[in-house]
Amino acid sequence: MKYINGGVTAAKGFKASGIYAGIKKKKKDMALVYSDVEAIVAGTFTTNVVKAAPVKWDMKIIKEFEKARAVVLNSGVANACTGELGEINNKLMAISVAEELNIPENSVLTASTGVIGKQLPIDIITKGVKPLVASLAYGEEAANLAAEAIMTTDTYKKECAVTFTLGDTTVTIGGMAKGSGMIHPNMATMLGVITTDASISKELLVEAIQADVVDSFNMVSVDRDTSTNDSLIILANGLAGNEEITTKNDDYDIFVKALSMVTINLSKQMAADGEGATKLFETKVIGAAQKSQAIILSKSIITSSLVKTAVYGNDANWGRILCAMGYSGVEFDPDKVDLFIESAAGSLQLVMDGMATDYSEELATKILSEKMVTAVADVKMGDATATAWGCDLTYDYVKINADYRS
Amino acid sequence: MKYINGGVTAAKGFKASGIYAGIKKKKKDMALVYSDVEAIVAGTFTTNVVKAAPVKWDMKIIKEFEKARAVVLNSGVANACTGELGEINNKLMAISVAEELNIPENSVLTASTGVIGKQLPIDIITKGVKPLVASLAYGEEAANLAAEAIMTTDTYKKECAVTFTLGDTTVTIGGMAKGSGMIHPNMATMLGVITTDASISKELLVEAIQADVVDSFNMVSVDRDTSTNDSLIILANGLAGNEEITTKNDDYDIFVKALSMVTINLSKQMAADGEGATKLFETKVIGAAQKSQAIILSKSIITSSLVKTAVYGNDANWGRILCAMGYSGVEFDPDKVDLFIESAAGSLQLVMDGMATDYSEELATKILSEKMVTAVADVKMGDATATAWGCDLTYDYVKINADYRS
Repeated sequence: MKYINGGVTAAKGFKASGIYAGIKKKKKDMALVYSDVEAIVAGTFTTNVVKAAPVKWDMKIIKEFEKARAVVLNSGVANACTGELGEINNKLMAISVAEELNIPENSVLTASTGVIGKQLPIDIITKGVKPLVASLAYGEEAANLAAEAIMTTDTYKKECAVTFTLGDTTVTIGGMAKGSGMIHPNMATMLGVITTDASISKELLVEAIQADVVDSFNMVSVDRDTSTNDSLIILANGLAGNEEITTKNDDYDIFVKALSMVTINLSKQMAADGEGATKLFETKVIGAAQKSQAIILSKSIITSSLVKTAVYGNDANWGRILCAMGYSGVEFDPDKVDLFIESAAGSLQLVMDGMATDYSEELATKILSEKMVTAVADVKMGDATATAWGCDLTYDYVKINADYRS
Repeated sequence: MKYINGGVTAAKGFKASGIYAGIKKKKKDMALVYSDVEAIVAGTFTTNVVKAAPVKWDMKIIKEFEKARAVVLNSGVANACTGELGEINNKLMAISVAEELNIPENSVLTASTGVIGKQLPIDIITKGVKPLVASLAYGEEAANLAAEAIMTTDTYKKECAVTFTLGDTTVTIGGMAKGSGMIHPNMATMLGVITTDASISKELLVEAIQADVVDSFNMVSVDRDTSTNDSLIILANGLAGNEEITTKNDDYDIFVKALSMVTINLSKQMAADGEGATKLFETKVIGAAQKSQAIILSKSIITSSLVKTAVYGNDANWGRILCAMGYSGVEFDPDKVDLFIESAAGSLQLVMDGMATDYSEELATKILSEKMVTAVADVKMGDATATAWGCDLTYDYVKINADYRS
């Protein structure tokens, strides 16, 4: 099992493209992922009551149909809070891709990201479909273009692919994602597309992706704002030629592990590129009585504005971490908590049994000054653990979001 | 019923003082509120599992005793996460005040605010008690000094007092509070002391304050971080001479209304002075089916980092408001929501039935540029309403909290 290049085109039979259509001022704004053959499809979507038009479209298709061929994505306009016209425009986007590819419209999934409340510039989008389809290609470069075209305030594209063997067959899972702001997924990420040439039943693909996001995308938070557009779509086209996975056998376990390598990698990329972030902040809660408690505690730490600003300031203000654990709703004994920080610069125990150790502030600052920092809290109640990913809260987060539309 | 000056000394028989003892570098750091006679006492405290030593002390006293005489408060060190030594130090603070005032130690309540995890500098504090008690005085100036001495990152002191009549008797309620950061009260505010000369039974005083905070301090959020030290204490010494309120009669209703005038006024002052805030942001949710829904929706809007940065940028990015309502957990029909903004510069409907109106961006920016801005969301499900208070999220919030300890 190893990482390879290629993102969404790493698996056999997947093409991609990314172009500038004119939705945004300058940057690429339309992407397409295409499978040469029908692919089993699954997805998880935002839990926000306010759901964007493409989310509603995808949820319906994935529920009613087993397979899909393509995912068209645009950045710049979210197509959320746009009423019936928004749904019509979304359908027009899917239909124009379907016609250009000569496939059924219900085999085209859609995704949008950007400003809420604006209608899609549907003329620009339908005009963009022709060059978008024309530039579909295999290979790393095409995947890069697609990953780039779904970015909004992201500062870099997010791609990952893993290859592994099932029996004698080489199988690949690849993916791309976008994140940055309004990131607090609760079922899925902002936008993510995963492709695999594995042969797997719809039932198990659904189960695998739903179980996976609990420990991957759902553990990411940039700003506690769960978007209206969160979508994670996975396409499995079976072209690897492995024996179809239809039961939870060893092959399924390997597939799930590889999937997790891709999704956790993308999750960390997303957290590290949170709007305005200067560093990736990882929180591990260990020793919890139940997994659900570990999840709540780790997310409570990762989302605290006071913890996030302290991390930005390289300040080992650990009281804020205990405070965030304390208001999470989980019962624990504050007088038993141990707290550690770790990074490439070393590791340090800040708190033992709820009170400060005699630690070196100098070393603490050095540890916190790295690009990736981990805080580990042990609540000493049991064996359950969880890991969450976030980032620091900086001047630039405020800057980016105070004038996002201008 | 009218506002008057005087804060915690406005009611008969209350003295106050505020001094510099040496806990902080330069600013006043110890305050005392004292009643000439025994006062009925009630309070509400943080729901954080991690409770500061003074919170534990007060909760015990208020549970076990009906009356109290004094509240001693320090700023600079929170005395939270300080173990057994923290509890001993807190008790020493209470005892030294009790000795100096010649009153029982269990009639002295305590409150602390500041850095978590540091021990109280108990020598400095006990030395400070003598001048603190010596400077106790009636009148506005003394109240000002006390209100000033409990400030941390607050930029101004927060006081309020209201006078009203019960029968022929003039009764007064006054209070002071501190807020600024780590503000997301859930039972009480950061630190608040309310004094009244009303004569009222313990049972009804407890009921009045617990009902009151639901609509006042518990509706304030600066950063969603519920502190370890939140404390609101109310002392009623009966010196006004009104007939004791022992049933929920008209006098009780008037008392509750006056109390609410004080607490909501202090709540707004606290929100407006949120760390780094440039403006007070008020959110009213109307037309909810249940009060609890209105509370959740309004607090979800007020706490969204994306809404708060947009308010800072005077940007009518209303999609973020609908998004924050959508992930609140409350079920509503997004296609029915109306949204308005209001300030001294006018009012404007941004959204009708879930979609943008043809509003003027110029006027929207003008409205949002005021010092106090209100957003009103109508979900058209019923008659329940709630109002929450917060502030914008600015560069200065990050600045203040990235180097709070340095």
